[in-house]
Amino acid sequence: MPIRVTVWGENRHEQTEEDVARRYPKGMHTAIAEGIEENLGDDCVVRTATLDDPGHGLTEEVLAETDVLTWWGHQAHGEVADEVVDRVHRHVLSGMGLVVLHSGHWSKIFVKLMGTSCTLRWRDEHDRELIWTVDPTHPIARGVPHPIVIDEDEMYGEFFDIPAPDELVFVSSFSGGEVFRSGCTFRRGHGRIFYFRPGDQAYPTYHHPDVRRVIANGVAWARTDRPERALPELRRWAGPLG
Amino acid sequence: MPIRVTVWGENRHEQTEEDVARRYPKGMHTAIAEGIEENLGDDCVVRTATLDDPGHGLTEEVLAETDVLTWWGHQAHGEVADEVVDRVHRHVLSGMGLVVLHSGHWSKIFVKLMGTSCTLRWRDEHDRELIWTVDPTHPIARGVPHPIVIDEDEMYGEFFDIPAPDELVFVSSFSGGEVFRSGCTFRRGHGRIFYFRPGDQAYPTYHHPDVRRVIANGVAWARTDRPERALPELRRWAGPLG
Amino acid sequence: MPIRVTVWGENRHEQTEEDVARRYPKGMHTAIAEGIEENLGDDCVVRTATLDDPGHGLTEEVLAETDVLTWWGHQAHGEVADEVVDRVHRHVLSGMGLVVLHSGHWSKIFVKLMGTSCTLRWRDEHDRELIWTVDPTHPIARGVPHPIVIDEDEMYGEFFDIPAPDELVFVSSFSGGEVFRSGCTFRRGHGRIFYFRPGDQAYPTYHHPDVRRVIANGVAWARTDRPERALPELRRWAGPLG
Amino acid sequence: MPIRVTVWGENRHEQTEEDVARRYPKGMHTAIAEGIEENLGDDCVVRTATLDDPGHGLTEEVLAETDVLTWWGHQAHGEVADEVVDRVHRHVLSGMGLVVLHSGHWSKIFVKLMGTSCTLRWRDEHDRELIWTVDPTHPIARGVPHPIVIDEDEMYGEFFDIPAPDELVFVSSFSGGEVFRSGCTFRRGHGRIFYFRPGDQAYPTYHHPDVRRVIANGVAWARTDRPERALPELRRWAGPLG
Repeated sequence: MPIRVTVWGENRHEQTEEDVARRYPKGMHTAIAEGIEENLGDDCVVRTATLDDPGHGLTEEVLAETDVLTWWGHQAHGEVADEVVDRVHRHVLSGMGLVVLHSGHWSKIFVKLMGTSCTLRWRDEHDRELIWTVDPTHPIARGVPHPIVIDEDEMYGEFFDIPAPDELVFVSSFSGGEVFRSGCTFRRGHGRIFYFRPGDQAYPTYHHPDVRRVIANGVAWARTDRPERALPELRRWAGPLG
Repeated sequence: MPIRVTVWGENRHEQTEEDVARRYPKGMHTAIAEGIEENLGDDCVVRTATLDDPGHGLTEEVLAETDVLTWWGHQAHGEVADEVVDRVHRHVLSGMGLVVLHSGHWSKIFVKLMGTSCTLRWRDEHDRELIWTVDPTHPIARGVPHPIVIDEDEMYGEFFDIPAPDELVFVSSFSGGEVFRSGCTFRRGHGRIFYFRPGDQAYPTYHHPDVRRVIANGVAWARTDRPERALPELRRWAGPLG
Repeated sequence: MPIRVTVWGENRHEQTEEDVARRYPKGMHTAIAEGIEENLGDDCVVRTATLDDPGHGLTEEVLAETDVLTWWGHQAHGEVADEVVDRVHRHVLSGMGLVVLHSGHWSKIFVKLMGTSCTLRWRDEHDRELIWTVDPTHPIARGVPHPIVIDEDEMYGEFFDIPAPDELVFVSSFSGGEVFRSGCTFRRGHGRIFYFRPGDQAYPTYHHPDVRRVIANGVAWARTDRPERALPELRRWAGPLG
Repeated sequence: MPIRVTVWGENRHEQTEEDVARRYPKGMHTAIAEGIEENLGDDCVVRTATLDDPGHGLTEEVLAETDVLTWWGHQAHGEVADEVVDRVHRHVLSGMGLVVLHSGHWSKIFVKLMGTSCTLRWRDEHDRELIWTVDPTHPIARGVPHPIVIDEDEMYGEFFDIPAPDELVFVSSFSGGEVFRSGCTFRRGHGRIFYFRPGDQAYPTYHHPDVRRVIANGVAWARTDRPERALPELRRWAGPLG
């Protein structure tokens, strides 16, 4: 069964900033979607959804048919309806995978899942980023160089206010000397979450083959092994032996 | 400097159920407070606060002067004002310690900090609980027998929908054969959180000396090592070398 | 590519104790091997090796062609040659998966990989074991009931002196009220290790379909995602941009 | 009760290399010891021991009176007697704390406790090191700047082949862009272990006030909370209720 992926993009910078539109003529979400398809081929079926779609494109029906959702947002986190955030949250806890990218660290859904402020330090001055693998047997690190080199991107630095990740897969350094836990996994309820740092709209990061490979690996990893989708529930229990 | 502790209690069962009132004539919160004082002595200063106090007794002033807050709630989680939950959440991320007890697993503040459903299985039928230490060097396990024996309490069973704890200190078993991760630590923002399972209102659990000892150990552990209280913040950063 | 599995068995109780021979007429290792084949089918190729084979059946050639090794030993841990232990250790750190079963907790190879005493409490008195899943999205827990019920087996109790596992998948309880971290994963070097508790020679545990399922899941999980086998090495490094 | 600290130093470079002798005229171990005393004052009693002392200065008597041992070695790891390594190992599992410094990553005792190769990448070319705190509530990070700046030291880079640490406290970056998990805690048996990266003999790192502060914090953290020293043991167990 191919993985059913929904790539969600805020898709606003692309409408209002010429350089972003030039960099991502079909939107950042399309570049992300193409990177997943390029790597997973027939093992995935990818659709996209954006903020300005009805219900942000994330209706109950869409989510029920999504194995893994990827999330990129930045300037309009506040415009995402709480009702949609609650719906996505419920689906993640029920078993839908979630891959959160870059500035999605401050999205309502990521903050709600983490329980922390998800704040960090940043600087948008064309830092070179090096992404080092610190968990070489992790499936998300499969097939990537050590380090991945991104010539220019925004800098994110510690302290990154997240819970200690279940697995730390990548650590980045930047030209300025900062470090960042840039590839982190979390399990919440019946769902799996992967956070991956790169990808400011002001740089062509989602055309980078290694970045695309990692995102695709993350999607493959985030699909749950549980057969059916179900929310963990509070219930009275007679006991194991009936 | 003694630890400034605020013991928060819902204090409703004690008003409406005769057996609970008999078991805890001054309220469950008072029994919890006495257990902390009994163990920490001059190393702590303890006050109590309850749901029906103005602002639930958790004003900005009180929280600013609290090093560690303990939380017991059950039937009235929904009556805790969101504004107070947000305030407590901000203080925890800023460095206030939090000890969550028993049915506090489903309190708004714990659910908000965990990001998960915090659901579990339960049965209120006088199970015997055995609490085993699985992290014998942890300060929270100091001075307790292996196992702690509680003759009767409510049963809580897995799956307990929490993030994998940073440290698993205790695991319980029950007469019915169920198991539960009953002593768990979490770090969130600049704050430390300890969840400890025992303590249904229908049993005299907070008079049990080992339970009191663990709660006091948890309070001592949850006080942060950071000198000042501050929320992690999102900020632009010129770089380490200025 | 099917997973190349080598099932290693001490195979001594079967030679000297009539009841074990009756329970496992072709040896415990054969029952374990059949359980893996039964579950993984064409996705695996399984061979067996035992203590009394030349080089304990674990020559350089055999290990080089093994993706995942499973290990059961008990009364003859001391007879396993240090040279063979070192060889297996090197292969695990290079990327070979390892599944350690039951009394294998005290094997030389497991102790060497853990760095601790690997001691525990035990009682061989026909306890009923219940195995509860505490990480429901883990691939090793796929398809097993909650709890797995084993009518009779040896008891293992905490404190189990292992490093905190990377992932805690299962927790067991026993008739006597003891608990045990019975399904644990560890990553060491480029290799993955799964420890699974059940399986004393005095009980028919390796004929139990759920136990066989878990072992097969563990084998599938323990195969590394890295393409080639290599030992992590100490080396001088000019730098990432060379 | 003050913490009884034994600072172990290989003390060979100081005998044979003029520049090291000039940098550390009383030996590196003495500088480390002075840094601990400077920070912990009356809360510690510090002695030193070196490779060329009888029994490497680590007799049964010395270890029995040591709460926390610190370890620096480099060129003579192979000369440390296996018998002494086994003795230290037993004491760590019994509850003695251990702080391993810099090139101690490849000491016999650290490798034995970790179970992995403990290899890494290195370059001795006067890199600047920045040490960032990623766990700001950890007692080991108390009172240190973010980042700690070391003008010159040897570089250590990932992949550092250790088990995933129980807590990751610090991450370093270097002039060359490499990163390293430079402050890691581990619990093994009844003992606590802290690994801290800085300190090549070719640089004056152990005179750096922040480095001294971290080592002292590490010593304070590594003292166990358990009252008495005891090795975890394998034993038959009648059950919790006798």
